[in-house]
Amino acid sequence: MKLFTSVHDVTDINSLAAEALALKQNPYAYKHLGENKTLGLVFLNPSLRTRMSTQKAAMNLGMNVMVLNIDKEGWALELRDGAIMNGTTVEHVREAAAVMGQYVDIIGVRSFPGLKDREEDYSETIFNKFVDFCGVPVVSLESATRHPLQSLADLVTITELKTRRRPKVVLTWAPHIKPLPQAVPNSFAEWMCKADVEFTIAHPEGYELNADFTNGATITHNQDEALADADFIYVKNWSAYEPYGKVLPGNEDWMLTNEKLKGTNDAKVMHCLPVRRNLELSDEILDGPNSVVVHEAGNRVWAAQAVLKHMLEAL
Amino acid sequence: MKLFTSVHDVTDINSLAAEALALKQNPYAYKHLGENKTLGLVFLNPSLRTRMSTQKAAMNLGMNVMVLNIDKEGWALELRDGAIMNGTTVEHVREAAAVMGQYVDIIGVRSFPGLKDREEDYSETIFNKFVDFCGVPVVSLESATRHPLQSLADLVTITELKTRRRPKVVLTWAPHIKPLPQAVPNSFAEWMCKADVEFTIAHPEGYELNADFTNGATITHNQDEALADADFIYVKNWSAYEPYGKVLPGNEDWMLTNEKLKGTNDAKVMHCLPVRRNLELSDEILDGPNSVVVHEAGNRVWAAQAVLKHMLEAL
Amino acid sequence: MKLFTSVHDVTDINSLAAEALALKQNPYAYKHLGENKTLGLVFLNPSLRTRMSTQKAAMNLGMNVMVLNIDKEGWALELRDGAIMNGTTVEHVREAAAVMGQYVDIIGVRSFPGLKDREEDYSETIFNKFVDFCGVPVVSLESATRHPLQSLADLVTITELKTRRRPKVVLTWAPHIKPLPQAVPNSFAEWMCKADVEFTIAHPEGYELNADFTNGATITHNQDEALADADFIYVKNWSAYEPYGKVLPGNEDWMLTNEKLKGTNDAKVMHCLPVRRNLELSDEILDGPNSVVVHEAGNRVWAAQAVLKHMLEAL
Repeated sequence: MKLFTSVHDVTDINSLAAEALALKQNPYAYKHLGENKTLGLVFLNPSLRTRMSTQKAAMNLGMNVMVLNIDKEGWALELRDGAIMNGTTVEHVREAAAVMGQYVDIIGVRSFPGLKDREEDYSETIFNKFVDFCGVPVVSLESATRHPLQSLADLVTITELKTRRRPKVVLTWAPHIKPLPQAVPNSFAEWMCKADVEFTIAHPEGYELNADFTNGATITHNQDEALADADFIYVKNWSAYEPYGKVLPGNEDWMLTNEKLKGTNDAKVMHCLPVRRNLELSDEILDGPNSVVVHEAGNRVWAAQAVLKHMLEAL
Repeated sequence: MKLFTSVHDVTDINSLAAEALALKQNPYAYKHLGENKTLGLVFLNPSLRTRMSTQKAAMNLGMNVMVLNIDKEGWALELRDGAIMNGTTVEHVREAAAVMGQYVDIIGVRSFPGLKDREEDYSETIFNKFVDFCGVPVVSLESATRHPLQSLADLVTITELKTRRRPKVVLTWAPHIKPLPQAVPNSFAEWMCKADVEFTIAHPEGYELNADFTNGATITHNQDEALADADFIYVKNWSAYEPYGKVLPGNEDWMLTNEKLKGTNDAKVMHCLPVRRNLELSDEILDGPNSVVVHEAGNRVWAAQAVLKHMLEAL
Repeated sequence: MKLFTSVHDVTDINSLAAEALALKQNPYAYKHLGENKTLGLVFLNPSLRTRMSTQKAAMNLGMNVMVLNIDKEGWALELRDGAIMNGTTVEHVREAAAVMGQYVDIIGVRSFPGLKDREEDYSETIFNKFVDFCGVPVVSLESATRHPLQSLADLVTITELKTRRRPKVVLTWAPHIKPLPQAVPNSFAEWMCKADVEFTIAHPEGYELNADFTNGATITHNQDEALADADFIYVKNWSAYEPYGKVLPGNEDWMLTNEKLKGTNDAKVMHCLPVRRNLELSDEILDGPNSVVVHEAGNRVWAAQAVLKHMLEAL
């Protein structure tokens, strides 16, 4: 594997999830693989889970890890080709990426969208420039439009905890006060559309995701209907795709509560975290028996480790 | 050992200090203990000595270390139970701590007091939330009211350098321009009250520490009297406990000078650092033969290593 | 080797460059040397290449690495002897350096010049204080007036890529909008003056470097003349030495272009990076076949590794 940015980079997602679960049972079985190999983690935005779980995964594989908060410890990057750099940017991504590729064997990159210009965000300029110029395998630590390590961890969690062969999985929109990226729901949708699950997306009118990611999903504006008989409920806010990056008024009643769990198949509640309590998701859910959000976050290690293992094997 | 936040977490402080000194003689004797174990160091405030000495201690034990400056690299944490998170906090400490506990075997946490609300600070909300929710052993890297790794290193230093069986140890208040926490003096006092020393606290009127920490100490407002025949002088500023967090006017003459050392037993001068020269402590002391502040800082490694060793053994 | 801050710290620069190239062929041959040894990297300013390449070099030698962004993670340092520290500085460099020396076996320090006070910058106060007080070997990660790891990597690159025994090397000034330090050109000049090359410096009038660094170099204001028959062109902006730290008007035509390469010996173009495209150096050069800037950055690893190896051997 040379690139991990979307579900399309994976030949067999079920086999990859199974591999992650095998690593969970035997974390150090491949510690020789990463000997004298270095992972570089480049953050253009904050991170807690991704930062720590990916480091842990790499260390389990015997790799060295270098973390660079490039926005704080390095220089402001120029992204535009042909730019005359007489402003505030200090280094072009062409050089920055190429140089990092000299020092590490695999690069992870996190770069959030601006949520101002949809075309720019969906062209994944920053992430793709790193891929184009660094010369080594690249794993997305969340890009403008996708968060594949999260989605793989979600698939791992569903695979691990499901109680029937083909569970019903519901992605349900949740309220928020700030416009959030579509990366997590896009990514979760494209993974679930390929997974062996019955997949439904519920959101208020106006929050339609880009159809490229939802092909095969049942989509509804009726949350109650969607939740009926659900095995897994994936709660997540996102801002509108059209008008791009906007929070639409209303819809506060979309917050998940215990009451809404009643018609489900004792559904497990998932969230990628961080979660705003009592806005996106109620205390009673998060502190109750149905929440698996911490367990899910724990699985981030094994998802990352499975991906890094494949990349190391292909070096 | 599952928790290291105060002297009350230690069965036998003399034996722990002796163990630290044994590790100083043989730093890598327990390198197998930490194999495939990870220490997570979470900083909500700046750190130099604690950051570096605890990392070094963990590496001596063969552990991996992940450092997270959560205030800069992560998200703003919500601490209040039941909060509707529609403001600036992005993640509740309940999730943050629980998730970190998924990625590491032991967590270290640093969190300073606000010095505004005494009850809040002395309830140790942040530190205790990490303990309650992370699910792994926790070592304090300085909390609102205590700094136990510093105190253990201080005990180690006194044990190592004492020239009589039961030395006289004096904690003396020093001037400062800013209100500082009571964590270091509280902690030093509660350790010295249990140590095999004669312990005196000297401070100007109004700087009484919380009596919970000073039970058994001789307390005086007369610095000269306190210093007489001292073997160790621990210099430290703190702000008032009542009125809480205030700097009281005057007392500039409490700065330690060579002149004040004259009546002592050629006392060794200690300070936890950082120290403001010529405000808290004079150049002549810091650059003279009586200062052991750098040696004391060096002992931070062995104190941390003894504590981490106990925690690893109990995993 | 106890100190690496200038060309004068090296007995034989050709042998050191050869050693770096041997390490490039066999990166892990000395991995036992750094076992249980720790490198501390202290940054008072941002860094990408130096940070990552020096970490990588240390890991290749089996060392542990601790990185401290002291300006962000630690405290503001006081540098003046005798200061009464009642202002914003929290710790004196005397204590900070001495304490770090307790935790690591070798220290690297980066500290840029203020470009306000020439005498202060050229006295290298910060760097020298670390050397004076830390008690362990110190490697410069770029100081106010020199960047020796860069210069060694440059020598390594020239040694590796030269096509005749004694190549012509030209350091040519380049335009910039901000006043930059003289550290890189000073350092490159003093290394090239000792290297087995024909060395020319070209710059506009007013950009004369301090003569201490350029003894033996041919110096000209005529860029075309300088570039004739060049094998290597080292492109770099610097601010004036007199008036100190100033950008002089004009000279935009000093930017290197393909047209200017025509009279050269198919010269390889070098730059220490970061480079401002189309201001210091044109896209056509950076994206063309003559640029070796990324290769040169890659050699930073082997330069640092050769220096650290010598320091480890002398511990």
